[in-house]
Amino acid sequence: MPITSTAHAGATGDFSSLEPLLNPRSVAVVGASADASRIGGRPVAYMLKQGYQGTLMPVNPARDKVQGLQAYADIDALPVAPDTAIVAVPAAQVVDTIESLGRRGGKSAIVFSSGFSEVGSEGEAHQRALTDTARRWGVRLLGPNTAGAFNSTLGFYGSFASGLERGFPLPGRIGIASQSGAYMAHLMGLARARGMGTPIGVSTGNECDISLGEVIGWMAHSPDIDVIMAYAETVRDVGSFIAALEAAHAARKPVILQKVGKSSLGMQAALSHTASLAGDDKVFEAVLADYAVIRVDSSAELLNIAYAASRQIYPVNNTLGMITISGGAGIIVSDVAEEQGVSMPPMPKAAQLLLKEKISFCSPTNPVDCTAHVLNDLSLVEDFAASMVLDGHYQSVLAFFSQAGSAPSVAPKLRQALTNVKNSYPDRLFVMSLIGDEEQRRPWEEAGFVMMEDPVEATRVIAAMGQLGEAFACPLPEPPSLTNIELPQLAVGEAEAKQLLANHGIPSAPEGIAIDAASAVSLAESFGYPVVLKIASPDIIHKSDIGGVLLDVNSVEEVQAGVETILQNTHKHMPEARVDGVLVARQLTGGVECFMGIQRDLQFGPVAVFGLGGVFVEVLQDVVFRRCPFGVEQARSMILSIKGAPLLCGARGRPEADVEALAEILSALSHFAYHAGDRLESIDLNPVLAMPKGQGAFAVDAVIQLQKESDHAA
Amino acid sequence: MPITSTAHAGATGDFSSLEPLLNPRSVAVVGASADASRIGGRPVAYMLKQGYQGTLMPVNPARDKVQGLQAYADIDALPVAPDTAIVAVPAAQVVDTIESLGRRGGKSAIVFSSGFSEVGSEGEAHQRALTDTARRWGVRLLGPNTAGAFNSTLGFYGSFASGLERGFPLPGRIGIASQSGAYMAHLMGLARARGMGTPIGVSTGNECDISLGEVIGWMAHSPDIDVIMAYAETVRDVGSFIAALEAAHAARKPVILQKVGKSSLGMQAALSHTASLAGDDKVFEAVLADYAVIRVDSSAELLNIAYAASRQIYPVNNTLGMITISGGAGIIVSDVAEEQGVSMPPMPKAAQLLLKEKISFCSPTNPVDCTAHVLNDLSLVEDFAASMVLDGHYQSVLAFFSQAGSAPSVAPKLRQALTNVKNSYPDRLFVMSLIGDEEQRRPWEEAGFVMMEDPVEATRVIAAMGQLGEAFACPLPEPPSLTNIELPQLAVGEAEAKQLLANHGIPSAPEGIAIDAASAVSLAESFGYPVVLKIASPDIIHKSDIGGVLLDVNSVEEVQAGVETILQNTHKHMPEARVDGVLVARQLTGGVECFMGIQRDLQFGPVAVFGLGGVFVEVLQDVVFRRCPFGVEQARSMILSIKGAPLLCGARGRPEADVEALAEILSALSHFAYHAGDRLESIDLNPVLAMPKGQGAFAVDAVIQLQKESDHAA
Repeated sequence: MPITSTAHAGATGDFSSLEPLLNPRSVAVVGASADASRIGGRPVAYMLKQGYQGTLMPVNPARDKVQGLQAYADIDALPVAPDTAIVAVPAAQVVDTIESLGRRGGKSAIVFSSGFSEVGSEGEAHQRALTDTARRWGVRLLGPNTAGAFNSTLGFYGSFASGLERGFPLPGRIGIASQSGAYMAHLMGLARARGMGTPIGVSTGNECDISLGEVIGWMAHSPDIDVIMAYAETVRDVGSFIAALEAAHAARKPVILQKVGKSSLGMQAALSHTASLAGDDKVFEAVLADYAVIRVDSSAELLNIAYAASRQIYPVNNTLGMITISGGAGIIVSDVAEEQGVSMPPMPKAAQLLLKEKISFCSPTNPVDCTAHVLNDLSLVEDFAASMVLDGHYQSVLAFFSQAGSAPSVAPKLRQALTNVKNSYPDRLFVMSLIGDEEQRRPWEEAGFVMMEDPVEATRVIAAMGQLGEAFACPLPEPPSLTNIELPQLAVGEAEAKQLLANHGIPSAPEGIAIDAASAVSLAESFGYPVVLKIASPDIIHKSDIGGVLLDVNSVEEVQAGVETILQNTHKHMPEARVDGVLVARQLTGGVECFMGIQRDLQFGPVAVFGLGGVFVEVLQDVVFRRCPFGVEQARSMILSIKGAPLLCGARGRPEADVEALAEILSALSHFAYHAGDRLESIDLNPVLAMPKGQGAFAVDAVIQLQKESDHAA
Repeated sequence: MPITSTAHAGATGDFSSLEPLLNPRSVAVVGASADASRIGGRPVAYMLKQGYQGTLMPVNPARDKVQGLQAYADIDALPVAPDTAIVAVPAAQVVDTIESLGRRGGKSAIVFSSGFSEVGSEGEAHQRALTDTARRWGVRLLGPNTAGAFNSTLGFYGSFASGLERGFPLPGRIGIASQSGAYMAHLMGLARARGMGTPIGVSTGNECDISLGEVIGWMAHSPDIDVIMAYAETVRDVGSFIAALEAAHAARKPVILQKVGKSSLGMQAALSHTASLAGDDKVFEAVLADYAVIRVDSSAELLNIAYAASRQIYPVNNTLGMITISGGAGIIVSDVAEEQGVSMPPMPKAAQLLLKEKISFCSPTNPVDCTAHVLNDLSLVEDFAASMVLDGHYQSVLAFFSQAGSAPSVAPKLRQALTNVKNSYPDRLFVMSLIGDEEQRRPWEEAGFVMMEDPVEATRVIAAMGQLGEAFACPLPEPPSLTNIELPQLAVGEAEAKQLLANHGIPSAPEGIAIDAASAVSLAESFGYPVVLKIASPDIIHKSDIGGVLLDVNSVEEVQAGVETILQNTHKHMPEARVDGVLVARQLTGGVECFMGIQRDLQFGPVAVFGLGGVFVEVLQDVVFRRCPFGVEQARSMILSIKGAPLLCGARGRPEADVEALAEILSALSHFAYHAGDRLESIDLNPVLAMPKGQGAFAVDAVIQLQKESDHAA
């Protein structure tokens, strides 16, 4: 019985519909080949070789047996409805195959076949038909144009990746979720070469149904996976992706993500002033900032961090202590730690003195250079390391012993000394930098050390583990329930925009219309001096030309005289003009010009941007993004993260600006945008003037753009 | 006979005095131990094991034999004067040992002993005595406090590095020059683990005589070395260091340098405004820019680049073509290439069409994704690769074949296909990215491919080889002969400074004093309008107050009337004042404020700095340094390298500034500073106004600081 389903469960955080696909009890291979080197033959050969624990059913109308297994003429002939069907037939037959599979009660399919959206418009239509068919039958579909998936915990190899010919994945607890089949195999191969186990790998191909996010989400719930390595070219299904990151955060599983390429999405946002500042990639980066995701640039970094993470030690308030026999390596690590933002506080003085008593010419600050002298008496290493965790309170300890650490005369005693300390402090991250072959590294691995040959890479993974520790320690904010701010039906004028924003905590420069000198004085007194006076009349465009504007009005007397002067000038030059009164506005001087905005990202909804005004935004693109909404604390750290931030903090004798007020406005703006809904296209507050500390911050100009009614309807 | 020598030959580019040290025909080991695990025993044991090709002479007063060799009671008893003596005796005996060695005619020494400058002031005095003794006898000295040196081409191991216990360096052509002994051994161990040969390694320790620069210089001349890996904490002897980089450049040997730590040198420069902008490290970086040096941050990067460089293919006008079976890897490489500044132009259209005929669904732009289809017919790879070098003219070709490249069914044919193309174009750099074990990689290595597992690291080494290609292709500029610009004896006032600079090609805003209206007009006409008129009188300080200044004077008539007005105002308000005439100055408006300066670095002499004015310099420290002197072309590339450069190039509708004029001034300033000699402390031109294109650039303010006479005498 067909069911009608167009939405994925994934976006709600329920990824269980991938279970039959990735933990199948029965597998049909449609287009199964007797030739183990062909695409339709490989999955069968791999599963036979690895002893798949479920029922394996080749489908081939021309043969009774395929690679020794009984074959079935077609899907209808299968003895049981398969949990998943591997589909290796020409593109033209795929839709019919899924139709048959759905009718037979199959739960999922892996479609190897290419010839769909990757080949242009005809293929796209074909792919839509495929999606429709799968959804109609409730068959979850991986691909098409995918290299498939494997789950070695049950010997399931629904993949034709030729990399598996060279060797199957090792046992372990790292999952691979990749949009590229070749890259999935590449990562599996790299991991195996390093002795790292990746029991589960999934490549999503064209993602006509199942997206990368759902795969990550399923792994977040999988009892077989602790760490997720992901490769993405574009995020097609934001709802699932975000839900997956939430699930991974909740399960304390890091997602190490290599995201490549520049998408051309977000073109629609080009109408907004903000748009040209925002690479989609920066927006994406801003979204990741909320979760336990480490973004990397290379597979080497991906492997390093996933490897270290598989120890599942994520230090909170990370500090790094280094014990070394090389002063040089100590300097290298100090440089990198500073660059990576990992704190390396010195050892307490008293502890330093005690260590000096043990080795008089050691350098016990941090890095703690105990010198090669310890190689003569390795029990000293235990004293030094113990003092570092106990007195220095370092959350991470990096030991640099280069080749000495694998020398047969040194290694066992050194390992014992460090293991004694490590085992007493199981929450600390111990990283060992030594050079050795696999045999020399293995006992260190088994003792629970993170092994990194290069001290620079060691420092980088320590930084990453600290970032993960911070991320896991912070509960994800609950998104507030939507309150549906009412937006005007049509365009919004500046005055209306300012009023709307002011009602939601985003103040403009204070102003008001006075009908006489007395009310002008009372407004001015409430704002503080200096103020600006302007004639308020719908008929007068060029107010300055008729003497209708006065700047730098500084006292009660000057306000009184000024109102008089302006009204007289108006009467003299434009006696016919309608006059509403005199506008009194706080004159803002000495502030720092900032820029704030909102743009609606097609994928991630409203995104806030902050930067300094002028060249900072226009030339240096020194701006920061974050997905809406967010709190004042997050707004503050955004503001302080830009390169020009010293300008706000009193650099070079400047007055300190009211960063607190800026942060409150930026957070309020993010909440406004969140609650304003899809019709809000963009907001530009340019400039926002940050006054000296304690004096607030004010939007001087405000532009709100709404989606045109026609866009909205479409 | 003692000789007196305080200067090194190294600074002149003659490094031959290191020959006895690093290519010794005879070696004495003073303090030789019978125990092969002791510091004094290890060199003997290593050389015995590796078959040192010269005469090995242990010195030990207590024994007849050491490790089976005849021992000598003291240096005087040696049968020949040793080319080098390894000194492993307590610090207190070292000076006497060198004295004896000098008397005996020994040519060089390697002093393992510690207890010198690294232990404070007493040790420093001790080290000075050591240096004096060595120099008096003309004994070249490595150390003290060094782990020594080795040259495996003759089995010479003047080192106690315990890393050698695990294995000796492999044959190869990469040299290691390191200030840290532990790090020398670390690099040697890493290289060996990767199958890279480092036959010669030198650690310089305290550098009381021989500095890192001399070692690099010697390697630049050594017929056994093609590539130099260097590790530096500080450069102590700039003359030798620069001469060594020149020698390496001349020999087309790249120096891959890991320079760590922040020195606190240059404190003296704090008097200058420029000083706080200049990290010593930035100055160092600026010096390297002239030579064939690649600076790296980690030993992993050091090894990668040295490995690739040992193929000695350094592309000029580097372009990268990638052939891949994974679209994903293609995107990754495109991202990194852009970041690294490596151009990846597309294939010519006609060539693309021909490739499409071979594989209809390939993507032949660049990266050229020939898809996994080629694995069925590997001769296609040759067609694709040939078209890439022939039609695409790529100087570097990166092939990504992941695990497929090491599959037994694929590798031989794939290698043959690519080798056919490679061998036809021996000047092109072929890099292969595949996953395989050592046995699978070896035939590729032997066929001459650069093997990099990770495509990101592959792209980085391709970028580095291109940088080296550029550097080798540019002859180093001959430093101009010094012309000795005459500086004033005492302080320099602003007017004098501007005049002095103007004489050397650094113009200030043009100005002159007119004695009447006619001469004022002629000045103004020569400068161009608008001009400023100012009363010129030594008696009038506040010229504006008496109506002695006129701005925006725009025509002959206005100049005539303006001169009249100013003279009348002066006569009226200050009839007693002496009047020299009326100052006529070009009024500069619409220019971009820049900053230029010179600071004298203790190590590298005068260094020029350029940046944009205001926040760019003060907050963002967006400045660029270069050692003086340099040409206009180099000045231009400095100017265009800063982050704010778009401001000068017409960003966001601004007028384009006269970058050419800026470059001429900056180069002229660098030559002025070079010829001005040691007494020049600093120059600040702040601002220099860059006018719109074609209208020049002018120093608006100029401060020249000279060294005080007392400093100079000291």
